[in-house]
Amino acid sequence: MVDFNQAQKLAAEALGSFFLFVTVVGSGIMAENLAGGNVAIALLGNTLATGAILFVLIAILAPISGAHFNPAVTFVMVLRKELSAKLGVLFVIMQLVGGLIGVWAAHIMFELPVFQLSEKTRTGGGQWLSELIATFGLLFTILGTVRFRPEWVAPAVGLYISAGYWFSSSTSFANPAITVGRAFSNSFAGIAPADIAGFIIAQFIGAFLAWGLASWLFNASNDLQN
Amino acid sequence: MVDFNQAQKLAAEALGSFFLFVTVVGSGIMAENLAGGNVAIALLGNTLATGAILFVLIAILAPISGAHFNPAVTFVMVLRKELSAKLGVLFVIMQLVGGLIGVWAAHIMFELPVFQLSEKTRTGGGQWLSELIATFGLLFTILGTVRFRPEWVAPAVGLYISAGYWFSSSTSFANPAITVGRAFSNSFAGIAPADIAGFIIAQFIGAFLAWGLASWLFNASNDLQN
Amino acid sequence: MVDFNQAQKLAAEALGSFFLFVTVVGSGIMAENLAGGNVAIALLGNTLATGAILFVLIAILAPISGAHFNPAVTFVMVLRKELSAKLGVLFVIMQLVGGLIGVWAAHIMFELPVFQLSEKTRTGGGQWLSELIATFGLLFTILGTVRFRPEWVAPAVGLYISAGYWFSSSTSFANPAITVGRAFSNSFAGIAPADIAGFIIAQFIGAFLAWGLASWLFNASNDLQN
Amino acid sequence: MVDFNQAQKLAAEALGSFFLFVTVVGSGIMAENLAGGNVAIALLGNTLATGAILFVLIAILAPISGAHFNPAVTFVMVLRKELSAKLGVLFVIMQLVGGLIGVWAAHIMFELPVFQLSEKTRTGGGQWLSELIATFGLLFTILGTVRFRPEWVAPAVGLYISAGYWFSSSTSFANPAITVGRAFSNSFAGIAPADIAGFIIAQFIGAFLAWGLASWLFNASNDLQN
Repeated sequence: MVDFNQAQKLAAEALGSFFLFVTVVGSGIMAENLAGGNVAIALLGNTLATGAILFVLIAILAPISGAHFNPAVTFVMVLRKELSAKLGVLFVIMQLVGGLIGVWAAHIMFELPVFQLSEKTRTGGGQWLSELIATFGLLFTILGTVRFRPEWVAPAVGLYISAGYWFSSSTSFANPAITVGRAFSNSFAGIAPADIAGFIIAQFIGAFLAWGLASWLFNASNDLQN
Repeated sequence: MVDFNQAQKLAAEALGSFFLFVTVVGSGIMAENLAGGNVAIALLGNTLATGAILFVLIAILAPISGAHFNPAVTFVMVLRKELSAKLGVLFVIMQLVGGLIGVWAAHIMFELPVFQLSEKTRTGGGQWLSELIATFGLLFTILGTVRFRPEWVAPAVGLYISAGYWFSSSTSFANPAITVGRAFSNSFAGIAPADIAGFIIAQFIGAFLAWGLASWLFNASNDLQN
Repeated sequence: MVDFNQAQKLAAEALGSFFLFVTVVGSGIMAENLAGGNVAIALLGNTLATGAILFVLIAILAPISGAHFNPAVTFVMVLRKELSAKLGVLFVIMQLVGGLIGVWAAHIMFELPVFQLSEKTRTGGGQWLSELIATFGLLFTILGTVRFRPEWVAPAVGLYISAGYWFSSSTSFANPAITVGRAFSNSFAGIAPADIAGFIIAQFIGAFLAWGLASWLFNASNDLQN
Repeated sequence: MVDFNQAQKLAAEALGSFFLFVTVVGSGIMAENLAGGNVAIALLGNTLATGAILFVLIAILAPISGAHFNPAVTFVMVLRKELSAKLGVLFVIMQLVGGLIGVWAAHIMFELPVFQLSEKTRTGGGQWLSELIATFGLLFTILGTVRFRPEWVAPAVGLYISAGYWFSSSTSFANPAITVGRAFSNSFAGIAPADIAGFIIAQFIGAFLAWGLASWLFNASNDLQN
């Protein structure tokens, strides 16, 4: 059994978040630039890129840090005692720092102003329910594959988020760090800073509910009735 | 060998059907909203989301309930005696209940009226033949992968339905519960209630034929002639 | 080691060809109907469906017949002595019969005249080179995965043909039986009967060259020079 | 453990580069021809084809030569002493020769003038940063999968480049040989010869940084602090 030290784990979270945020924001800019106003085509490009990079990042970084890149995932792993609360806090800091640098790198690549704040309104009960369901499903996907098919966490998460971009009205941010990062980009993937709180609260509620349900549902026992 | 109790199996069918129906209906609404009238682009988004979520749901729920989410699949599993008829009936109830809640959740996410009835006509011999062939192929895919590559049921079903959305004139519902659920959504994925019966009859005929053919085709024996 | 009898093998070739041709022709009709004249969008739908069904059909039928569905593949397997010439002829007949029924089923599903002849001209040196390269690559893909990663024949063939639909000017028919079948459909996927011969000759040349090169390239030996 | 001789390794690099360049250039021409001016749709087709062929080529040729098709990859493998410098130089020659023939074959397939020089300007700090990040990520993906999931190099590279086509402003050439090859095609995928140098320098810097970071990050050790 290999083991990695704390600096490696933190670097893995920062680097993975960097590439995830580069992809979410960069592919959104590229897609909007090219799609000629057809938002469905832009979302196809954004979806393809996001799903693909999630597969890659989880495949290569999960053996080091677990490949969270997401405070809601870190939160549940702390609840499950797979991570100390202290290390969990450090993970979230790395996710935010690595991710923000990724957002800014995307802006530099596309020769846009580095520092931006989004003006895109994303609020209301429909979108909050979307984030709750989307994050519930994301954690459920992770806990289910970890339980039954640990080698499939990477494709399952990539495909789950690909579906989520389309099934929810909020396009499934499902990640408090991404929510913060997107507020710093006034582009396709953005969210106005005032709307962050509603999204993040819904995301943590969804994650918590998934943790509770998964604890029961994925726990095999003898079945005397069937 | 792990085993799950009946409540867990029923919950798996309800939860999986919830996410499947959320995705079919939600991604249809999203796709139609964004596609600017180009139905092929809308169907690409709908296809991508449906295929992706099927992979995820089967990967994490098949070890618990078999991940049917589909009365035609449950019907064939009862024919194969892998499930009692009584448990089969409970499965179908869970599929309908979980699925309908999913349809309504999609409406709430997109801030549409919760209760709707579809007005989209889907009828005629061409569409019935489509449903018969599509459901035949779905069961054939499931029985073939269970037979030869059990670890590939999830990707095979996701990809089969992705193909079916395009090769059939009916977009391959291939699922009596989804057919009922879609009747409750006056959106991209809908079907008028009056047209349900024709689809469901064709689906069960296709499933039955697949069961018969698969029983012969997938049964290896010594070959003295070749 | 399981073995299947000759009737099962022939049925597998016929049934697989049926679904492959249904998908190629049906998804072409669906895509053209919906794409509003944007042929690139139509080709995306056609590609997605064809790649997906190839994965499925090879996954479930390769253990029975090898899942050729293609006389150029059968030809190379006879050259490799994995199949008798007599059985190879029967395979090709099954591919043509199953496939043609698939073309006609697609027409019935979309409520088009069953019997059609294509009027789409596909000829000239550029297209013949396309078919030669495309079929060379297809056989090379099959022989390479059979050699090194036999469990990946299905995804590799599905993805190879997905690439081929775009990299070649002929959209990579790469299959003499499909070439004949498409001549019977005056739709997106069609080819005028007069243009069949050029395509088929190029396909067999490509297949033959792949067989020759693969025999040398995939044959490991000790390397004293490196 | 199988081994292949030097001629086989060189042929694998040439043949793989041929098909990779055929696909990058050919699918770009096809996509632009069909997309009716919507560049996002064209890029979707180009992405799909490139990602798919990378999966196939790596799956079947990695066991022979490592399936580099890319001087930046060969450079890092020489740094890692997995390849002699002399063989590395031969690999790069094969990549350029095989790849250029691929570019010209694509032109012949689409009945375009064989010899072309691109007039598409691709320059500036944003694009150079894009190439640096894109090539860093590509090498990081390869070294990470080789380290943890060697059987997943093929899907990871295919999906990484699919994401890169969208997340970077340069569409992630990430390959000095492809950069040279694209200069010989005045089509969708082209780059003006004057802009080659900036891209290639950025690519080698990115590859070198990935090698350095990977040497530390992927090297497991005992963790006394966590």
